[in-house]
Amino acid sequence: MIFVESYKAIIEEGLREALSTYLHPGQLYDPIRYLIEGGGKRVRPLLTLLACEAACGEAGRALNAAIAVEMLHAFTLVHDDIMDNSEMRRSRLTVHKKWNANTAILTGDVMIGIALRLLGKDAHHCVQPLNVFEAFTNGLIFVCEGQALDMWHLNSPHVTSDDYLAMIDLKTAKLLEAAVEVGASIGNASDQHITALKDFAHDIGLAFQLNDDLLDLTGGEQFGKTAGGDIIQGKRTWLMITLRDTVLDGRGSSLVSEFFKNNGLDRSRIPEVRSLMETNGILEKAKALIESLTLAAQSHLSAVPDGNARKNLELLTLQLMGRQH
Amino acid sequence: MIFVESYKAIIEEGLREALSTYLHPGQLYDPIRYLIEGGGKRVRPLLTLLACEAACGEAGRALNAAIAVEMLHAFTLVHDDIMDNSEMRRSRLTVHKKWNANTAILTGDVMIGIALRLLGKDAHHCVQPLNVFEAFTNGLIFVCEGQALDMWHLNSPHVTSDDYLAMIDLKTAKLLEAAVEVGASIGNASDQHITALKDFAHDIGLAFQLNDDLLDLTGGEQFGKTAGGDIIQGKRTWLMITLRDTVLDGRGSSLVSEFFKNNGLDRSRIPEVRSLMETNGILEKAKALIESLTLAAQSHLSAVPDGNARKNLELLTLQLMGRQH
Repeated sequence: MIFVESYKAIIEEGLREALSTYLHPGQLYDPIRYLIEGGGKRVRPLLTLLACEAACGEAGRALNAAIAVEMLHAFTLVHDDIMDNSEMRRSRLTVHKKWNANTAILTGDVMIGIALRLLGKDAHHCVQPLNVFEAFTNGLIFVCEGQALDMWHLNSPHVTSDDYLAMIDLKTAKLLEAAVEVGASIGNASDQHITALKDFAHDIGLAFQLNDDLLDLTGGEQFGKTAGGDIIQGKRTWLMITLRDTVLDGRGSSLVSEFFKNNGLDRSRIPEVRSLMETNGILEKAKALIESLTLAAQSHLSAVPDGNARKNLELLTLQLMGRQH
Repeated sequence: MIFVESYKAIIEEGLREALSTYLHPGQLYDPIRYLIEGGGKRVRPLLTLLACEAACGEAGRALNAAIAVEMLHAFTLVHDDIMDNSEMRRSRLTVHKKWNANTAILTGDVMIGIALRLLGKDAHHCVQPLNVFEAFTNGLIFVCEGQALDMWHLNSPHVTSDDYLAMIDLKTAKLLEAAVEVGASIGNASDQHITALKDFAHDIGLAFQLNDDLLDLTGGEQFGKTAGGDIIQGKRTWLMITLRDTVLDGRGSSLVSEFFKNNGLDRSRIPEVRSLMETNGILEKAKALIESLTLAAQSHLSAVPDGNARKNLELLTLQLMGRQH
């Protein structure tokens, strides 16, 4: 684990350094520093660095690109928080609450620009530098498509678990795929290794999101969010969809119907939902799905050259699933 | 003029073609088609095509990039309309009014992605393809900085005419510079020609924005906007700033003070402001400034190879300033 931590320190320094040149106008750039200083797991830039190192032995070659990928992720947080009307993020006010929606829109926009500039600094290491931009761009487009589906699902009564998995594939997994593809391309990895890393990122992306949904219900407070926030907001998570498909007309079906009809439930009903999920084995099913995705992810790594980077990708996966800290 | 019109037809077809692959999710992509179908002068893609043709004799080499530049411009319109709370654009409802703010935020975001994909299709023509992305990215960052200053000016009592010119340099001129730099780079123009084209674009950018401000006051209705809309909204245009600096404590100074104090005036006061500007020769001063910028722009073109493209850039300039249709 010591390795992953040392990469994180490099990323934090890289973020500070990258933002140090963006000072004026302060009303545009201050919110970026505020958001980045709020911390985060830095999973995406870690993936970029490790994918690059797995390919060429040198993580630092993709440091700017790693910062670019984190900036792209942070942009999605700022805009998603406006759309979801979220008040808190990492136990601090969201950008649109601390400033206002206009500032948050514009700050998010310029973060894409900053990310592109950083990407340009490292892309020349790649034999085909345009591939780096292509991977990044796919990440941007897919994450927007995923967010569109996520918003659309909120008002839709008939979302299936496949719909949900397709949505988180776009909204979460594709950005992790972009993170490794950017890093691996800068390291001039073979097509075969890039594919293996993307498959790995895809599976940890889905597992990570499902785990996040689970934690929202069972241990959300520790992340500075409201426990059961997804239920209050009416989010059609895999958990709620699977609960609906399991109870059908049986016990608890009226509670579930109410959730889908009213697009959410009052905070006071959360324990009832949690208990219903436990009775119907939904939490266990979710854990089993997360476990199988995690194993699949690890198996894709076997096609990646053995070494320090691969070892760290394995450790990162365990850390992400809350098995190691 | 027939030449510029034929380029415009190619651009319209290119826009349709580019958007034809973006269908699902419809709630994300439909608003883009709606906006693009609303029309526009297509000045920026014209500049990209003509800059490329001036460099290599072939405009079509930069068609995807030209569409990318228009998409970048259209993204700024969608997000600016939310921030300005504008209801109408080109005589149709703005995206956030026809749909909602969330849709407009996300649609704008994905337009940057679509633009980047299109740019990637043409960048390989350039000996240094990363230069194409760099020029585009500068356009994106500067336009955000310009919008931030524009919003900040709205609540600031002491904006100077230099502040205003610096703001429109970022918000308008820099995107025209990006348009020609992208096109010229794809045509592998020399550094000297790129500089000449950027200087040209800078000057027509300022002239174009000042002309737009003038038309807002004197002939706005024909563009589907409200005449004097800038005055109602309290925009600190060059015209209002220069009027303030001219009347000082003299006749009309109370009207001007009211404008700056209340961040705008009622619609009924517009004729009064217009008359005050006429009396103080502000409109004439603005016209003289526009004329000198237009002449400066044309003079930069003399460093660009003579030929069809240069001739069309000259014609486009006249058309933009309303001298030819």
